[in-house]
Amino acid sequence: MVTTRTRKIRILHALLRAGDKRRLRRTLERLDDVEVAGQLDNLDTDDQLTVLRIVAAPRRAEIIAAMRYESAAGLVAALAPEEAASLVDDLDADDAVDILGYLPEGALSGILKQLDRQDADEIEDLLAYDEETAGGLMSPQFFSCSPQATVADAMAVIQSSEEQPETAFYVYVCDEDDHLLGVCSLRMLVISRPDQPLRDIMFTEVSTVNADTDQEDVAEMVSRYDLVAVPVVDDQRRLIGVVDVDDVVDVIREEATEDILKMAGAGEDLADARSFLGALKVRWRWLMAAAVGGTAAALSLSGFDALLATVPALAFFMPVVAAMGGNIGIQSSTIVVRGLAVGYIEADRVRRLVVREVGLGVVMGMLFGVLIGSVSMGVAEAGTDPLRLGTVVALGTAGSMTIAAAVGTSTPLLLDRLDIDPAVATGPFVTTSVDIAGLLFYFWLASVLLGIT
Amino acid sequence: MVTTRTRKIRILHALLRAGDKRRLRRTLERLDDVEVAGQLDNLDTDDQLTVLRIVAAPRRAEIIAAMRYESAAGLVAALAPEEAASLVDDLDADDAVDILGYLPEGALSGILKQLDRQDADEIEDLLAYDEETAGGLMSPQFFSCSPQATVADAMAVIQSSEEQPETAFYVYVCDEDDHLLGVCSLRMLVISRPDQPLRDIMFTEVSTVNADTDQEDVAEMVSRYDLVAVPVVDDQRRLIGVVDVDDVVDVIREEATEDILKMAGAGEDLADARSFLGALKVRWRWLMAAAVGGTAAALSLSGFDALLATVPALAFFMPVVAAMGGNIGIQSSTIVVRGLAVGYIEADRVRRLVVREVGLGVVMGMLFGVLIGSVSMGVAEAGTDPLRLGTVVALGTAGSMTIAAAVGTSTPLLLDRLDIDPAVATGPFVTTSVDIAGLLFYFWLASVLLGIT
Repeated sequence: MVTTRTRKIRILHALLRAGDKRRLRRTLERLDDVEVAGQLDNLDTDDQLTVLRIVAAPRRAEIIAAMRYESAAGLVAALAPEEAASLVDDLDADDAVDILGYLPEGALSGILKQLDRQDADEIEDLLAYDEETAGGLMSPQFFSCSPQATVADAMAVIQSSEEQPETAFYVYVCDEDDHLLGVCSLRMLVISRPDQPLRDIMFTEVSTVNADTDQEDVAEMVSRYDLVAVPVVDDQRRLIGVVDVDDVVDVIREEATEDILKMAGAGEDLADARSFLGALKVRWRWLMAAAVGGTAAALSLSGFDALLATVPALAFFMPVVAAMGGNIGIQSSTIVVRGLAVGYIEADRVRRLVVREVGLGVVMGMLFGVLIGSVSMGVAEAGTDPLRLGTVVALGTAGSMTIAAAVGTSTPLLLDRLDIDPAVATGPFVTTSVDIAGLLFYFWLASVLLGIT
Repeated sequence: MVTTRTRKIRILHALLRAGDKRRLRRTLERLDDVEVAGQLDNLDTDDQLTVLRIVAAPRRAEIIAAMRYESAAGLVAALAPEEAASLVDDLDADDAVDILGYLPEGALSGILKQLDRQDADEIEDLLAYDEETAGGLMSPQFFSCSPQATVADAMAVIQSSEEQPETAFYVYVCDEDDHLLGVCSLRMLVISRPDQPLRDIMFTEVSTVNADTDQEDVAEMVSRYDLVAVPVVDDQRRLIGVVDVDDVVDVIREEATEDILKMAGAGEDLADARSFLGALKVRWRWLMAAAVGGTAAALSLSGFDALLATVPALAFFMPVVAAMGGNIGIQSSTIVVRGLAVGYIEADRVRRLVVREVGLGVVMGMLFGVLIGSVSMGVAEAGTDPLRLGTVVALGTAGSMTIAAAVGTSTPLLLDRLDIDPAVATGPFVTTSVDIAGLLFYFWLASVLLGIT
């Protein structure tokens, strides 16, 4: 799959370089809208414009809608305002908003001025919602009918509707003040008698969200209830929009990416990694935290210089003692962070989870401690009792792993309880603190067991 | 949200302990099917049975379908075969298969014997597909019509269908040998004249998958093309099933979890973490890899014992040199692994990516090297030139970070090219190899610059 895609890109690049518009047109006709969008995402703005102007006009809005939002915004910003406005006019309102949200103020108002008043107002209203909420995801287009309307009336509404909602599988039943009363699937309409009032066939236990519901909670609801669309209501339960499952699919992937990157201290968005300076900006912070922590560790360890001068072998095993702690700490914290994110960790099982993880730290710590400790006995210098060195390394490993499992498990749980996103600080924080704590324990143990201070 | 859920669980627990069936029934009536399922997931089998027998019979299949599959399987296995079969009979075939796939052979055949022949055959056919493929996700129930059928005919098929496909938004148009020719949405049916043949209104550029298409590729297609259902066809393009978006939503979450856990060397499935022994089994491997790598590092470092005996300060800075490398290595590898997973990294941009990441390693390495190196000058022992020590620490940090960025970026790219899942080995492999390489470089540098071997 990747190979085909890569080949297609290479051909497109070559045709663009050669300026062969005839073959370029033919190639583009063989690609579907989503494929063209994928290509555009990887071209610079000049090439994007060339391609967009070659494809047939009716395809353009579909192609733009399938592009990555930032990338589509760059292209839209490069068009003349009238041209951009005519494209935006063909987009579904929720896609238009996702793209326009990336435009600078000036370019945005230039485009909005070209749209007719009602469309511009609709887009401005939607832009006001936080993009990470149901309001930012919803489309304001949906079918609605009164409860007195019959099945035939509802079908007439669908037939006469000019702008078709992108994924219209439901007719929402609302009273005269737009209060949501129930929902009818198109299937229900098809299997019901034409003269039946919607009131009699509608499903009333509708799951709804508010405009300010976080997109993660919307995704959680769609996933738990197997929904295809979620109605968005205001405080008075008036229907204001609908979030479709395809947007939720994108949210789920984005949120997973965000969590993964946060845990690695690598920003929140893969787009952050696109430019050198952007990457530097999001990543230096976590490295600074590690540098400060590590330097603090170095300064605290400097108290043990007599010990190191006498038993240099202790130093060789520092990396493995720290790494064993780091690894089990990352395992524990990852399980907890992901478990919290997908709702796998139930609040009443937290104690059991902590006990099990610390138990794992102890058991694995002893196993690996004996293993690594035994090896260390082979490299004890003259003047050092191999058994004592082995004991220090073994207990140091066991201690470091136990501390790491405890810190790795409890840090994200604690952050979650404090309403701080556990993914944010877990990775670099756990690794750094576990390094320091594990090594200090190791050296303290050495100074006690080897009798050197 | 979590608080409410927790409170509900506590009440349920208390009522189960007290054996108060009347209040238990009342509480269960106030919860919807998905909520009851969430509760059952967290009870042991005896309590699950008690609850299941208290809820109204018609709800039982819906509740089971909304539970976690393994958990539902445990409950189904605890029922008498006739009772289990009657429940399974009420489930959609794809849910039934997901649950039955977790049953031991004996329990499974006991239940299949109780089903009528056709249902049992259908389930056995579906069980034969790998659960991580389109075949394992698909439902064999869908609406299909011939191309000559009219809109009215199609509506009659929907009306007369006894088993309603769970999310039926489309009628598939197939010839007499089941070859897929096109698709009509219910909306298209509603807005078309009743006497129009489907042939004239069907959409023919249908995206399809094969039964053995990997579930990740199905998810990628649903996400890129904003689909609500994907038809599954055999080699002759005969329609054999449909994958619905709600199953794809689950796949996307599962795959993200799998990638996150794999990168941390913590298994593939959060369920692995449920039991002490299960967790031990999946996690000891990566810890063993770290132990072997770390011990190898210790043995290679033991060649530098004269150096350490003379300049113990070198040892204090080992953890920070290694940690700086580890952190930037994890940043780089995480960006690459996730970028590959969501298709963000285009094959023709790989060189640029590697150059940028290594560039970041060099620039950040120098910045943090100067910072940490300056601090190290303050702890140089008598007899060590502080400037030389500072230079060793600074260049060691810079080298360790550069090596780490290079290894962190190229390892997952290389694994991907070799068709090995880059998430599998990246985390622990990168951390361990970067530790060793970074520290060996640091000590080699020290022996050269300080003139001690």
